[in-house]
Amino acid sequence: MKPSTVSRRGFLHTAGVGAMTVWVPRSASGYTGAEMRAKTTDAGTGIGVGVSKWELDTPALCVDLDKLEQNLTAMKAKLASTGVATRPHAKTHKCPAIAKLQLAAGSIGVCTAKVSEAEALFAGGVEKLLMTTCNVTPSKIRRAMTIRKANRSFIQAVDNPQNARDLSDAAKEAGIVADVVIDVAVGTRTGVPAGEKALALAQLVDTLPSLKLRGLISYDGGAQHIKGFKTRLERSLKNYEPSVQTYDMMKRSGLNTEIFSGGGTGTYNIMTKVPGFTDLQVGSYIFMDAQYLEIGGETNDELFTDFTPSLTVMTTVLNTYFPGRLTTDAGAKALTLNKPDAIVIGEKGFSYNAGSDEFGAIRYETANKTYKVGDKLELIVPHCDPAVNEYDQIYGTRKDLVEVVWPIAARGHSQ
Amino acid sequence: MKPSTVSRRGFLHTAGVGAMTVWVPRSASGYTGAEMRAKTTDAGTGIGVGVSKWELDTPALCVDLDKLEQNLTAMKAKLASTGVATRPHAKTHKCPAIAKLQLAAGSIGVCTAKVSEAEALFAGGVEKLLMTTCNVTPSKIRRAMTIRKANRSFIQAVDNPQNARDLSDAAKEAGIVADVVIDVAVGTRTGVPAGEKALALAQLVDTLPSLKLRGLISYDGGAQHIKGFKTRLERSLKNYEPSVQTYDMMKRSGLNTEIFSGGGTGTYNIMTKVPGFTDLQVGSYIFMDAQYLEIGGETNDELFTDFTPSLTVMTTVLNTYFPGRLTTDAGAKALTLNKPDAIVIGEKGFSYNAGSDEFGAIRYETANKTYKVGDKLELIVPHCDPAVNEYDQIYGTRKDLVEVVWPIAARGHSQ
Repeated sequence: MKPSTVSRRGFLHTAGVGAMTVWVPRSASGYTGAEMRAKTTDAGTGIGVGVSKWELDTPALCVDLDKLEQNLTAMKAKLASTGVATRPHAKTHKCPAIAKLQLAAGSIGVCTAKVSEAEALFAGGVEKLLMTTCNVTPSKIRRAMTIRKANRSFIQAVDNPQNARDLSDAAKEAGIVADVVIDVAVGTRTGVPAGEKALALAQLVDTLPSLKLRGLISYDGGAQHIKGFKTRLERSLKNYEPSVQTYDMMKRSGLNTEIFSGGGTGTYNIMTKVPGFTDLQVGSYIFMDAQYLEIGGETNDELFTDFTPSLTVMTTVLNTYFPGRLTTDAGAKALTLNKPDAIVIGEKGFSYNAGSDEFGAIRYETANKTYKVGDKLELIVPHCDPAVNEYDQIYGTRKDLVEVVWPIAARGHSQ
Repeated sequence: MKPSTVSRRGFLHTAGVGAMTVWVPRSASGYTGAEMRAKTTDAGTGIGVGVSKWELDTPALCVDLDKLEQNLTAMKAKLASTGVATRPHAKTHKCPAIAKLQLAAGSIGVCTAKVSEAEALFAGGVEKLLMTTCNVTPSKIRRAMTIRKANRSFIQAVDNPQNARDLSDAAKEAGIVADVVIDVAVGTRTGVPAGEKALALAQLVDTLPSLKLRGLISYDGGAQHIKGFKTRLERSLKNYEPSVQTYDMMKRSGLNTEIFSGGGTGTYNIMTKVPGFTDLQVGSYIFMDAQYLEIGGETNDELFTDFTPSLTVMTTVLNTYFPGRLTTDAGAKALTLNKPDAIVIGEKGFSYNAGSDEFGAIRYETANKTYKVGDKLELIVPHCDPAVNEYDQIYGTRKDLVEVVWPIAARGHSQ
């Protein structure tokens, strides 16, 4: 099921990526993050123009704004007739500016995985937040209630009775009624088991004086990267049956089910078939990555072409001595995961290994040009979420010019 | 060659780790990084006492200071009679405070992998710096010369003739003579091929007016994690033969070879057998990790016990619903690599999967206690370097109390 280089290359061309020439300025200025921030004409918006992304100090994290916008528009168009909304997961970008673009494009809110992410996004001006992980320690519960007190749009997940009581007590202490959703497990990672246990928890929440039940969330992390659309469709709908039954049980019991949220980029066009389902927690669709390209889509079994790779890492060639090999400055600390290979844009036969902490190792048989030390390459990352989490800022580019420097405000916020 | 859980457990007990009870305060305060920084009595040194590491908000990165000091002492003792010094690699800790401890323990300098790391360390008061990667872009070269101008102890690597000329030109422009070492390749990653090409480069450097040749570095990244001491010894000495010949050629040609540096934690007691070798670029010995534990040592073929695991990540149990499984809050964004498994201290039969970005997935058959949601666990990370690079600060603890909060000043400095 590994996509052939032909179809991958075809897609990259269609996406306007493969056609791009690898322009390598020998006089590259190599602007650092600090220098780029200083260049912005407005510190508040981070807008700064006139610098090519090929002149950035590397490794540098970039997002092509045309493609990002194209992905926002594509998701909206694909869901238009389904009645299902998006509540994108901000764990992917950790960036208030991008969350605001998603909300402006019609998303009904954004999700966060951790309370420290929610704090950073709220501090960055994002209010419609749903925290999908339960806060289980007194300090995290207190911090969640502090957000909720200042922000009536904040919703948090709960998955066990003691935690529900703790949340209610903390809400009472904060002088508020806190909005919660039941996290219903798919598999064995987070959430209360579907069925009677989940129903009992929802009923408990409904009776607790300082909590307001808003519905349920249920996310199948394992389903997103199943290769082949038909297999993914069948397995994810089957995995989701207990969640749907739980939704029905809650509804029949007269409980509030206004929110029934879940899914991801890999199942965005599958969850729309789930009765009662309200919104998708899609994350990667804005950026894409090598991992998602490989899963295949509804119309192309080899390559997932519904969204366009917009996120790239710029890297510099450090060593060209060895035939069929190049060494770059982007290794595990620039790309994190090493599977699948990062994709070198514009070169169809390159394999890229980021197994070394500091260096990328390219192997190839044929190349479009003779590479020199100092040349730059542009990479599609193996997996977008942890890669973004390595950088303090992301450069938003248009036609290769940096248009904006966005701080990744929740970078490192794994708490 | 996978170490048995028995021998691993035996070692962890000997190291005083396995004997530790997993104390789980239900009233855990969950102090955040900002709260901990505010608690320090001296902002300059980051010293703050009175908080147990079990009360930190998680995931939290900790280093046991007794064990860190034990590792510094152990390395010094093991090398005492060899005539070989240490020039530890700061890419591992990215922390000026730890670099200073290494220098205080007798190291002759520290290494950095990237110029942005060198800048952060120098800004943090560390002067004896050797940058092991070549700076190949005009901006990085300029930045390296800026460091060198302010810091006479700064040495940088060079591995090709054009780069040597560029460095000389930049040094001249900065009004200095810059110290350089030839990076001689082992394998095909970085460096000039050993032998004639390396000699010619050294001779060129020797003739360039604004460069001062200090010797050579040669690092075998692939050798460090070869399992089994005998295999590692044989292969790394064989791989190193061309580097030794290059050293001899340089010496016979009357070139300066006062520095002949390389090696790492996995070969620290192998490189000492290399004629002329001056200093070891050891990194992980201060922290250790699951990956290094598995390589085996000279006296224990199953487990590398020469240094003690001092680096840990504190994590919280989020979900206990599913028999034989626990979910924690430390996934790929808290630990990066997922191979080998993180080690749960105090539990011998736990497997820990950090394949999920946000969550750790533990599987077990037997456990020492019944875990509850909110309980905390302490983990030895799969691979220390990229894990440290996820955190803005590291808590230095002694007998489980936080003694110091050190900023990881070069975190994210992959440029």
